[in-house]
Amino acid sequence: MKRKIMVVIINRANYARIKSVLIAIKNHKDLELRIVVGASMLLPRFGEAVNIMLKDGFVIDEEIRITLEGENPITMAKSTGIGLLELPTLLDNHRPDAVITIADRYETLATAVAASYMNIPLVHTQGGETSGSIDHNVRNAITKLAHIHLVTNAKCASRLKKMGENPKRIFITGCPSMDIASKVGSQPDSYIKDYIKNHNFPVDTNQPFLLVVQHPVTTEYQDASFQIGETMKALIKLKMPVIALYPNVDAGSYHMVKKIQHLGVEKLPLFYFYKNFPPEVFLALLKKCSCIVGNSSAGIRESSFYGTPSVTIGSRQRTRDRAGNVTEVGHSAGAIQKAIQKQLGHVRYSPSHLYGDGKAGKRIAEILSKCSLDIVK
Amino acid sequence: MKRKIMVVIINRANYARIKSVLIAIKNHKDLELRIVVGASMLLPRFGEAVNIMLKDGFVIDEEIRITLEGENPITMAKSTGIGLLELPTLLDNHRPDAVITIADRYETLATAVAASYMNIPLVHTQGGETSGSIDHNVRNAITKLAHIHLVTNAKCASRLKKMGENPKRIFITGCPSMDIASKVGSQPDSYIKDYIKNHNFPVDTNQPFLLVVQHPVTTEYQDASFQIGETMKALIKLKMPVIALYPNVDAGSYHMVKKIQHLGVEKLPLFYFYKNFPPEVFLALLKKCSCIVGNSSAGIRESSFYGTPSVTIGSRQRTRDRAGNVTEVGHSAGAIQKAIQKQLGHVRYSPSHLYGDGKAGKRIAEILSKCSLDIVK
Amino acid sequence: MKRKIMVVIINRANYARIKSVLIAIKNHKDLELRIVVGASMLLPRFGEAVNIMLKDGFVIDEEIRITLEGENPITMAKSTGIGLLELPTLLDNHRPDAVITIADRYETLATAVAASYMNIPLVHTQGGETSGSIDHNVRNAITKLAHIHLVTNAKCASRLKKMGENPKRIFITGCPSMDIASKVGSQPDSYIKDYIKNHNFPVDTNQPFLLVVQHPVTTEYQDASFQIGETMKALIKLKMPVIALYPNVDAGSYHMVKKIQHLGVEKLPLFYFYKNFPPEVFLALLKKCSCIVGNSSAGIRESSFYGTPSVTIGSRQRTRDRAGNVTEVGHSAGAIQKAIQKQLGHVRYSPSHLYGDGKAGKRIAEILSKCSLDIVK
Amino acid sequence: MKRKIMVVIINRANYARIKSVLIAIKNHKDLELRIVVGASMLLPRFGEAVNIMLKDGFVIDEEIRITLEGENPITMAKSTGIGLLELPTLLDNHRPDAVITIADRYETLATAVAASYMNIPLVHTQGGETSGSIDHNVRNAITKLAHIHLVTNAKCASRLKKMGENPKRIFITGCPSMDIASKVGSQPDSYIKDYIKNHNFPVDTNQPFLLVVQHPVTTEYQDASFQIGETMKALIKLKMPVIALYPNVDAGSYHMVKKIQHLGVEKLPLFYFYKNFPPEVFLALLKKCSCIVGNSSAGIRESSFYGTPSVTIGSRQRTRDRAGNVTEVGHSAGAIQKAIQKQLGHVRYSPSHLYGDGKAGKRIAEILSKCSLDIVK
Repeated sequence: MKRKIMVVIINRANYARIKSVLIAIKNHKDLELRIVVGASMLLPRFGEAVNIMLKDGFVIDEEIRITLEGENPITMAKSTGIGLLELPTLLDNHRPDAVITIADRYETLATAVAASYMNIPLVHTQGGETSGSIDHNVRNAITKLAHIHLVTNAKCASRLKKMGENPKRIFITGCPSMDIASKVGSQPDSYIKDYIKNHNFPVDTNQPFLLVVQHPVTTEYQDASFQIGETMKALIKLKMPVIALYPNVDAGSYHMVKKIQHLGVEKLPLFYFYKNFPPEVFLALLKKCSCIVGNSSAGIRESSFYGTPSVTIGSRQRTRDRAGNVTEVGHSAGAIQKAIQKQLGHVRYSPSHLYGDGKAGKRIAEILSKCSLDIVK
Repeated sequence: MKRKIMVVIINRANYARIKSVLIAIKNHKDLELRIVVGASMLLPRFGEAVNIMLKDGFVIDEEIRITLEGENPITMAKSTGIGLLELPTLLDNHRPDAVITIADRYETLATAVAASYMNIPLVHTQGGETSGSIDHNVRNAITKLAHIHLVTNAKCASRLKKMGENPKRIFITGCPSMDIASKVGSQPDSYIKDYIKNHNFPVDTNQPFLLVVQHPVTTEYQDASFQIGETMKALIKLKMPVIALYPNVDAGSYHMVKKIQHLGVEKLPLFYFYKNFPPEVFLALLKKCSCIVGNSSAGIRESSFYGTPSVTIGSRQRTRDRAGNVTEVGHSAGAIQKAIQKQLGHVRYSPSHLYGDGKAGKRIAEILSKCSLDIVK
Repeated sequence: MKRKIMVVIINRANYARIKSVLIAIKNHKDLELRIVVGASMLLPRFGEAVNIMLKDGFVIDEEIRITLEGENPITMAKSTGIGLLELPTLLDNHRPDAVITIADRYETLATAVAASYMNIPLVHTQGGETSGSIDHNVRNAITKLAHIHLVTNAKCASRLKKMGENPKRIFITGCPSMDIASKVGSQPDSYIKDYIKNHNFPVDTNQPFLLVVQHPVTTEYQDASFQIGETMKALIKLKMPVIALYPNVDAGSYHMVKKIQHLGVEKLPLFYFYKNFPPEVFLALLKKCSCIVGNSSAGIRESSFYGTPSVTIGSRQRTRDRAGNVTEVGHSAGAIQKAIQKQLGHVRYSPSHLYGDGKAGKRIAEILSKCSLDIVK
Repeated sequence: MKRKIMVVIINRANYARIKSVLIAIKNHKDLELRIVVGASMLLPRFGEAVNIMLKDGFVIDEEIRITLEGENPITMAKSTGIGLLELPTLLDNHRPDAVITIADRYETLATAVAASYMNIPLVHTQGGETSGSIDHNVRNAITKLAHIHLVTNAKCASRLKKMGENPKRIFITGCPSMDIASKVGSQPDSYIKDYIKNHNFPVDTNQPFLLVVQHPVTTEYQDASFQIGETMKALIKLKMPVIALYPNVDAGSYHMVKKIQHLGVEKLPLFYFYKNFPPEVFLALLKKCSCIVGNSSAGIRESSFYGTPSVTIGSRQRTRDRAGNVTEVGHSAGAIQKAIQKQLGHVRYSPSHLYGDGKAGKRIAEILSKCSLDIVK
């Protein structure tokens, strides 16, 4: 009998970091795929990222609507609660042999807790990585609930062992997003060309441009507006094309967007804001941009695969393992501007496999088809 | 300004293990106490344990009703979700300087997650202890969310350090339940005498008797009925007085109670079932009983303080650190009977301070009045 | 294409009052049946009434667990909220052509509100009936949300018209419970004989006995304990066999059960308490008993079909249309005792079709297969 | 002892329609005011309308966050459920003598159900009015739950009586929004001047302009985008200044906003979109505009007080009682354009007191201080 693997995807970044696994599970003779999509994946304000999955040919088995509007600490905590009211019903109806949860967000935590109390084996990706904000603690909490750990490298594996996880339950697979990264050629492929054509994409990606992704730091919720303001001021002075993603649905997002609007940045020439990109488009942009700026983990993880210069701002990625392409800087417009200018002057960094070699998807499907799924750790 | 400490108590066993801390916070000049009571503490079926707290003179600041009826894996997971819908409002209204959460239950986890996303420092007791069932994983998950760890002994402290917790945030205090344990004299004091008198307590506690506390094992949910059945059959054969507590509000409880009823145990002479005891009464019984039988952590933790012989059944307490007074046995009536008989023949074990020296309450209040409450670990 | 009819059943009394409709929908060539079962139907404490449905051969499509434990006004209101979190997902997944909701409970209201906002035609039974307690208001509120009204008699139809409901949407069908009532013979049939045999039923139903069903009155929540006490005292004095059902899962139930236990009634000879009966067994008992006592609507509705003497206590059924078999009495042991004695002395009342002629099921299926299901009233 | 009156305000339009009552309760010697604010009143996307209340000097006692993001039928139904999880706690903590709920939205219904099961007298405004969409049914359902009805005119009172409501519980008070309407002078007062000055209001309100408020019709959810498109096309052709409010947080809103953006209307000269106005500013605009266009009840209710020409589109206000100033039209750009042009050519209509005489606030406070608050209707 095939093992039924349920994957819960609740954030646009989740999708890029699990897509190759979805494909590999779908194609594996001993596995059966179930997809649950929820939270901001379903929200128009975040570009209804579920549509990208549908275009990619995936069947969505269940949708969960759990995002309490407000984007503050209270609504983040309560949305986790709503997730915990929704997920047990799905888990009970589908009775998967294992559930995959990705990374470190509150929606991820809801999946982990629901599977735990439902006695369903929990598979977690990105365990053992380190970062700032509440995400770091949540990632570790999920590790302690998870039964199978799919980690990016030996360093992460070793951290999990130190935390007391059974080595037999830890698998070094690399991050699945590197699978997509490895397939993005130096020239945009037809998928991306089509995307660009259909979306009247205004930036010539063969000319220098910046890619900007900055999220609020939950533990510094009060400073979100100030923080994005400093970044925007630095970018305005640099006078080069900027492709920016709006922030995640976290406490502080609204205040960031309001600040961006208040500074009038959206209407400036050279500035182009997006809600969302298909993974392949985002990675092509990351590959071709002159520098990635902000505090997304992509500025450390995926950028390392290409050696793209990165300016990482503030505490959100503090302590995250990095290759040589990253410069850290505080929340000051002047310092950010200087750091970007320095990176622009630097020669391209050499690519690194710190976060994966591009073959995670099949590896993971193979592991899931064979590993012990005992719920007693 | 006084630090406002909120304590969330959601289970009868919680109360015994925090009561001396509540008193010490209340009496500390630099601290202010806020008490939230919820879940089975408010349920008639579990003896409305909140009444014991009220009789003890505590003011209850907030009540939360989060127990979805059913006692199965789905309702446990969903009840955690309801807790996460209730707690953020309370935390926002009271804005405590720190929140204390106790041990390892699902209601405990709800408190931990709510405080985390609300950026309120989380204080956790019993971190670093080990056990079986889902409780073990949940305890560790809470550890990774907690900012201050109040642990029972050096072994627990060392485990937390290995898990990557900052030594400056770990305090060896002993378990507060030993504070109460240390005050229970060899003769019942007036509090207990009164209790016994008022409740027509039928057992002569100066004669040999057994104390039985057995809960379902969440990860072995399907076997709950069989497991309690074996224990009951063993007890019936022993023909000595049995004081038993009904199980916790966990997946499997209902099936246990049904089995007990089906076997007709409640109506047997010598068998006395209770929903609940005030901490002092429970500990007096634990001190005087010939042997504690079942899978409650009290059979390992508090029993060690007195050297009371203990027969611990099944996997629920597996790996929990223990003194010399514990015998482990599987779920087989014959084996359980034999193990109890052997313990009855044994001389009293020597008391141990493995779980605390009886001075935790004041120690903890002092720590809470002074420790750093930085939310960035 | 067949019309898909979803029926939401959330209470043991619901089942008796819809069973013949379920059968008729199942057998109708143009209809397809979907069954949702929830709330106390799934709770062991209420006899897991869902098992009776399974034995009757029905397939349960969805289960919802919505009962917040506590049985007080807060948990009733919140349980309605949990129902409203669960039901929209089911309605969205199944996309029924119409949803049937039964009578006047809080779980019923959750179904009505969910269907309304989901733009799914709502079919309501028992509209236009009158009673006391909050049930009366809730029944009318559901009427104002419902699109199709299946009423018991012309009086109810006329009340709905006065309330502004479109006569084309009102159908006089009789109550489906009379369909079962009409098939219960004067001698227990094999189904009931079997039931009695399997359950060691202790009462000789060919000798005089009383049938007692008393629920808390939500609007008189504080008096629940006193109210049941008076009834019990009256029954004790009468010294004849009593078959009693435990009360519904409403605010006040717990206090009623506690009072019953406090009075020691459960252990008295002649008193037999049950959680639940299959509809056929309950109706056979109602047919054969000397008198039905309490405040269940069965004491007015179904009893009229048989002409069974009824003593209806307190305000819960006040204003409900009745045949000649009902005596009303207040919450006083003496008055209740006298009223019962008087009814015992009375000759059998003549049967009435006030609540239906026993042919509702097929009539309703036929209506549902053809009526307009326009959601704009 | 003062009667404690709790008012639950969960929508920007709610505030205008209860503000004078809040003031009158606050100033009444026998009443005490409690204010709960929630749903879109707290959402940045809807202009955080709570800030207007704070500026007006009101103390907010409680905030509830209940809006599940998505703006579709599922999230509307589930948001009602979240409201039902939040409100009972507040009602239990404050124990008001009565709760006021306003009009006909899903958040309103949550208040009505919570108060009903908590046995707290429910006071409802706008009962007996008629309209299209689900609002009509919900308004009537609330009527059947409410204990005190504060209605706008004798017609409404008579409808409630026909529906079976007790005449002693029905009070004709007029709508409180007319109290504010009556105080808005022909010239903007300083409050409005200030508002205009602070907000760089771009329209000269002494020149002809249109006021546009169009919401989705829940029961025509699928057509929301088409419907607003037709209106916008008509407005574009008219080439006169348009002041428009974004739609309510209902199923379909997002698609309306997307359509507005897709048509590029927000960037057109002459078009000015707002999230929100203080009641006085909105009413001044309504008084001075050449015509109000859309499907807001303000286009029928408040507009009648001034005799402002109104073009009411589609089914949302169908059947609502109206004065002579209203023209109805379907969802067709051509028809809408013609209807507006015809209204622009019409002389000003004579004012009407159909919805109130401007003295509702004090009247209502007086009623609440004296009326019977018996919960048994």
